[in-house]
Amino acid sequence: MNRNVAFLSRLGIRLPIIQAPMAGGSNTPEQIAACCNAGILGSLGAPYIEPDEIGKTLAAIRKLTDRPFNVNLFAPGWDTELKVQPEPMLDFLQPLYAELGSAVPKVPSRAMPVFEDQAELLIREKLPIVSVTMGLFPETVMQRLKANGTFIIGTATTVEEALALERSGVDAIVAQGAEAGGHRGAFATKNPGSPVGTMALAPQIVDAVRLPVIASGGIMDGRGIVAALALGASAVQMGTAFLICKESGVPESYKQAMLNAREDETVVTNTFSGRYARAIENRYTREMLRQNLQPLPFPWQNAMTGPMRKVAGAKNLPDLMAVYTGQGLRMLRPIPAAELVSALEREMRACLTDLRESFV
Amino acid sequence: MNRNVAFLSRLGIRLPIIQAPMAGGSNTPEQIAACCNAGILGSLGAPYIEPDEIGKTLAAIRKLTDRPFNVNLFAPGWDTELKVQPEPMLDFLQPLYAELGSAVPKVPSRAMPVFEDQAELLIREKLPIVSVTMGLFPETVMQRLKANGTFIIGTATTVEEALALERSGVDAIVAQGAEAGGHRGAFATKNPGSPVGTMALAPQIVDAVRLPVIASGGIMDGRGIVAALALGASAVQMGTAFLICKESGVPESYKQAMLNAREDETVVTNTFSGRYARAIENRYTREMLRQNLQPLPFPWQNAMTGPMRKVAGAKNLPDLMAVYTGQGLRMLRPIPAAELVSALEREMRACLTDLRESFV
Repeated sequence: MNRNVAFLSRLGIRLPIIQAPMAGGSNTPEQIAACCNAGILGSLGAPYIEPDEIGKTLAAIRKLTDRPFNVNLFAPGWDTELKVQPEPMLDFLQPLYAELGSAVPKVPSRAMPVFEDQAELLIREKLPIVSVTMGLFPETVMQRLKANGTFIIGTATTVEEALALERSGVDAIVAQGAEAGGHRGAFATKNPGSPVGTMALAPQIVDAVRLPVIASGGIMDGRGIVAALALGASAVQMGTAFLICKESGVPESYKQAMLNAREDETVVTNTFSGRYARAIENRYTREMLRQNLQPLPFPWQNAMTGPMRKVAGAKNLPDLMAVYTGQGLRMLRPIPAAELVSALEREMRACLTDLRESFV
Repeated sequence: MNRNVAFLSRLGIRLPIIQAPMAGGSNTPEQIAACCNAGILGSLGAPYIEPDEIGKTLAAIRKLTDRPFNVNLFAPGWDTELKVQPEPMLDFLQPLYAELGSAVPKVPSRAMPVFEDQAELLIREKLPIVSVTMGLFPETVMQRLKANGTFIIGTATTVEEALALERSGVDAIVAQGAEAGGHRGAFATKNPGSPVGTMALAPQIVDAVRLPVIASGGIMDGRGIVAALALGASAVQMGTAFLICKESGVPESYKQAMLNAREDETVVTNTFSGRYARAIENRYTREMLRQNLQPLPFPWQNAMTGPMRKVAGAKNLPDLMAVYTGQGLRMLRPIPAAELVSALEREMRACLTDLRESFV
């Protein structure tokens, strides 16, 4: 099966499914390899990983699969220096850290790995597939990736962003709908906190670009995959569905918080990292909102809340964790990734058969 | 064609499409009749219409079609008396009214028609189909509608709401996704301002209830209809797509504002009526947000901003209008409703054929 055989064959996959890159430990080598070996595209979310460590992770994945996989970075453009006074935020965080028996961490001299070093590593490794979120790769990076024959996937949350990515030379575009969990890939919208839902976004991007479109946001099972294909997508990208899988590297407390939450309990918030992301609403997000407190710019807010979220995760205190997740929470299946892929294939076929037989 | 033949036949329609009830003048008798005569279900959004006027509108529709149609009310439960001090809001509105050359209206003694009188009219008219948003019909109203053989459609924005509607005895449930324009039907969620997208909401409601589910939110063409059917819906409800049609009764300035806006320029805001609704972001919504000003409770905020919005519409000043619309703005087609229905049918068939041929 498949509408866009050339596209899937270029990605080396049998089913039109990409396991989403997710920064923050979910994408273990075991998860990525299980997905690739099951016939879909596995992805490593590498934006917060130092280049050396990315290299080691690539080697670990390659030990588990000989299939191609995708590596994701955030586009550069974030503030490499903190240009605002952090004191009001440190004052806000102090009692929360105290609750956890910790001190507020010192403001680091650097809050993210250096993008240029990360990009250099990806180019040197001659990766078959890379993806970018939160903007465009610089032109020189695009040229060197293309010289390597790398397939480049961009991420758009609006039609304008999709057109900018197309002009930049990417080979396919993820249409990230509002339902998606984790960080918004937004980079050219006035309303990053008020995103467009998948049902509206995917067909508008399909109509605007000539590239294959990968729908994401709220897709949790075979019904969602067929729905995305009906909207004109060539494939889907699924994060939340794999985040709960056995191989996912997030702590047990994180998975439990996902399983305990309902579909209307997530919000799009910039309180954790300084950039908008969908996460479960909790005491932390409510308190930031109540105090009408501006987060530090990305990635500084992320650096200052990271240790709090980590300790809270270890202590199973979801009220101080950032539980990034999409809105399809009642459709979560905490099973091995390979079993999930089998189920998705079965469900897709059943859904297509049902449409075929019901509508003649 | 059709999965749920009994359901469609009960609604008297050939295609699985409902033209959404939209309060505020969009649903003219001409629009409703054009939809019914084209083989879909037309709807009258009647929450703001006094019972006498509803009666006259029903007669006008019946002159134009002998097909059944749907009449929608808001569930009761709003504040029939204003219990907060309106002065801060009146102070905020004063310069805006002054800009339009008007004075702030006096706080009326009543801000909505009396629900019981509206319900009495619908019961007396023995309507074949009615729908309710923002809650449940009172038990006595349910009993009397059922005694008449009326088919009752409820509106849910979460699974909990869908289950409450099912328990109340409705016959079908609209799953209103986040992409939808206009008022949220929400009545039992803590996060009415942070709604669940159609791609995630529809299948979760389908899984939870035994009733037919009608998907809405972001559905603008045949691709969206097939996508909704893939998610398990028995039909779709489309508002925005019909709001722009020739027969829609909103002013030309309103339609022009929709055609000028992009998909990422709407927000879910309670600033216009006191209840959350999706509308185009403008100077009014931004100013309310900047001043962190609480709207009066529904329907009092609605009553106090209504004249401003009306005059602004007549003067073509979108910055002071409430342009309620969904997120599928690039897919708008300002054509007659019957032409839209023909196009939807053609597109549905093409989409199903494409899925059939591409995925074997």
